[in-house]
Amino acid sequence: MTERRYDPTTDEWVTFATHRQNRTYKPAEFCPLCPTLPGAEPTEIPYPSFEVVTFDNLFPSFSPHPPEPEVGTSELYPVAVAAGRCEVVVYSDDHSVTFADLLDDRVRMLVDVWADRTEVLGEEPTVAYVMPFENKGETVGTTLSHPHGQIYGYPEIPPRARRELQAAHSHRDRTGRCVHCDVVGFELRERRRVVAADRGWVAWVPFWARFPYEVHIAPVRHRSSLPELDDDEREGLAVMLATVARTYDRLWGFSLPYVMAFHQLPTDGDADDWRPLSHLHVEFAPPNRAPDRLKYLAGSELAGGAFVTDVAPERAASELRAARSGR
Amino acid sequence: MTERRYDPTTDEWVTFATHRQNRTYKPAEFCPLCPTLPGAEPTEIPYPSFEVVTFDNLFPSFSPHPPEPEVGTSELYPVAVAAGRCEVVVYSDDHSVTFADLLDDRVRMLVDVWADRTEVLGEEPTVAYVMPFENKGETVGTTLSHPHGQIYGYPEIPPRARRELQAAHSHRDRTGRCVHCDVVGFELRERRRVVAADRGWVAWVPFWARFPYEVHIAPVRHRSSLPELDDDEREGLAVMLATVARTYDRLWGFSLPYVMAFHQLPTDGDADDWRPLSHLHVEFAPPNRAPDRLKYLAGSELAGGAFVTDVAPERAASELRAARSGR
Repeated sequence: MTERRYDPTTDEWVTFATHRQNRTYKPAEFCPLCPTLPGAEPTEIPYPSFEVVTFDNLFPSFSPHPPEPEVGTSELYPVAVAAGRCEVVVYSDDHSVTFADLLDDRVRMLVDVWADRTEVLGEEPTVAYVMPFENKGETVGTTLSHPHGQIYGYPEIPPRARRELQAAHSHRDRTGRCVHCDVVGFELRERRRVVAADRGWVAWVPFWARFPYEVHIAPVRHRSSLPELDDDEREGLAVMLATVARTYDRLWGFSLPYVMAFHQLPTDGDADDWRPLSHLHVEFAPPNRAPDRLKYLAGSELAGGAFVTDVAPERAASELRAARSGR
Repeated sequence: MTERRYDPTTDEWVTFATHRQNRTYKPAEFCPLCPTLPGAEPTEIPYPSFEVVTFDNLFPSFSPHPPEPEVGTSELYPVAVAAGRCEVVVYSDDHSVTFADLLDDRVRMLVDVWADRTEVLGEEPTVAYVMPFENKGETVGTTLSHPHGQIYGYPEIPPRARRELQAAHSHRDRTGRCVHCDVVGFELRERRRVVAADRGWVAWVPFWARFPYEVHIAPVRHRSSLPELDDDEREGLAVMLATVARTYDRLWGFSLPYVMAFHQLPTDGDADDWRPLSHLHVEFAPPNRAPDRLKYLAGSELAGGAFVTDVAPERAASELRAARSGR
């Protein structure tokens, strides 16, 4: 069963993909994202070696030709097909590395891949919003340890991105400016929460960090999406992404889990309307609040949507700056 | 540092309570929620035995006399005191039981306690919304295993409750009816997702379940808050809460973790305005998608707010009904 169902009590859609219940789960020996070696069992990637590979997720939440919904639609509970795209992006043919271990030119190549797939998926009639992301580590639920990320092409603007665009809209109504431009300017003046700033890009712990060691990355100049970035800007983004990932691993001396995602321009509707409201940014959310303790989303966060954070953003930023510079 | 900070990019407040970083964490021997035995080290509860005890959380996110914020406020980043209340509700003096093990009259007493504390906390000038909840089990982050829940008295309507009220408002504008009344009526007619229905209360797997074995409980008649319930209604709620908790433990033969929370009437603003929009309900969200597998909130859910569920609600309801009746 693959379908989308509407929740009239929150005005949000939820997607059902019951075939995902049987997706590959922490395989002990055979890795489906490793290269296919001559004479060995074929993996999902039919090459003996590769740099970066993208392909359709075998267990997609959204697909270009989704089945008809199984449940009946009604006025109270509208139902829709789970149209869209789900891709896997494998970062390397080396099973043992992580994003933080990649060489600079591989990270640069990934920026091009994310930009290219944003453009290609965004052009599909079923896709309204493209979000490249990476779930890293067992504590955020990764079921395959081979270094990889995913790209979701959503059939609508997902709820959190929609709220960001609404907030940007009301800030613009009030001030005439982009809220993210204001935030980046504020952080560059204050510096207390900045982890790194270079080549027109800033990485900082947000003033309102929901996760103790959350880091955002954004361009200083208003850019709305990955495909908009020129060569220099892509180079700057790649450097900043590698800097943040490597800093995380130096923070406590182990490979830090995180959820990383790109927030960018919707690919449906009038781009000229969206562009002033959408400021490309990357959000890194590590689940740890200490080396041996996780921040769980429980009663207040899950049921209330009200986050309570245990670490001051200014302190997290100072620890991350120290980790970055090797103390 | 205890303060609230505004996130202008999502129009939500985030609370910081850095002293919580040092809260009691899975103590191996001494349980601070056990009774204080004669001659032994005093716990947080100065009685040798008790039925139900509520008291202020020693490590509160919100408090009646909060300190001044440490960070400066600004037009872009407003800051506020973390005023409000955080209480602990200890269900029993027996360390080894869970909510599902409580006798019926104890559950009935808890309903009265939640209703009473909703009234008392709601009358405080700093409290705008009262949410009783329980985080059960290590997989949802519980740091003390003694059976207990919490009550947060928030200084504003928390983001998710605000979205529910907005959705209820637009449903009412469109149809003239309460969306939860419509949902409960629909479920009672269809029956496919109903787990139990008795004494004017229904427990069902929502049509749009974000967690595979999510169960909601609501009164069939429109009731807005716990204090509004009469004796019969409280009795019915107690029976339904115990039924759901015990059904969960029978589903796979172990004590199932969950986040459980009450959604009810805001305690600030005009109650007559809120009452038609607010239909009291309880949400149970267990993190498991199978006995040995969790549903993680990762890229799509955390960064996009877009939930993907692996189990059909109709199937989950049928499994829960079978567990309830002993198969």
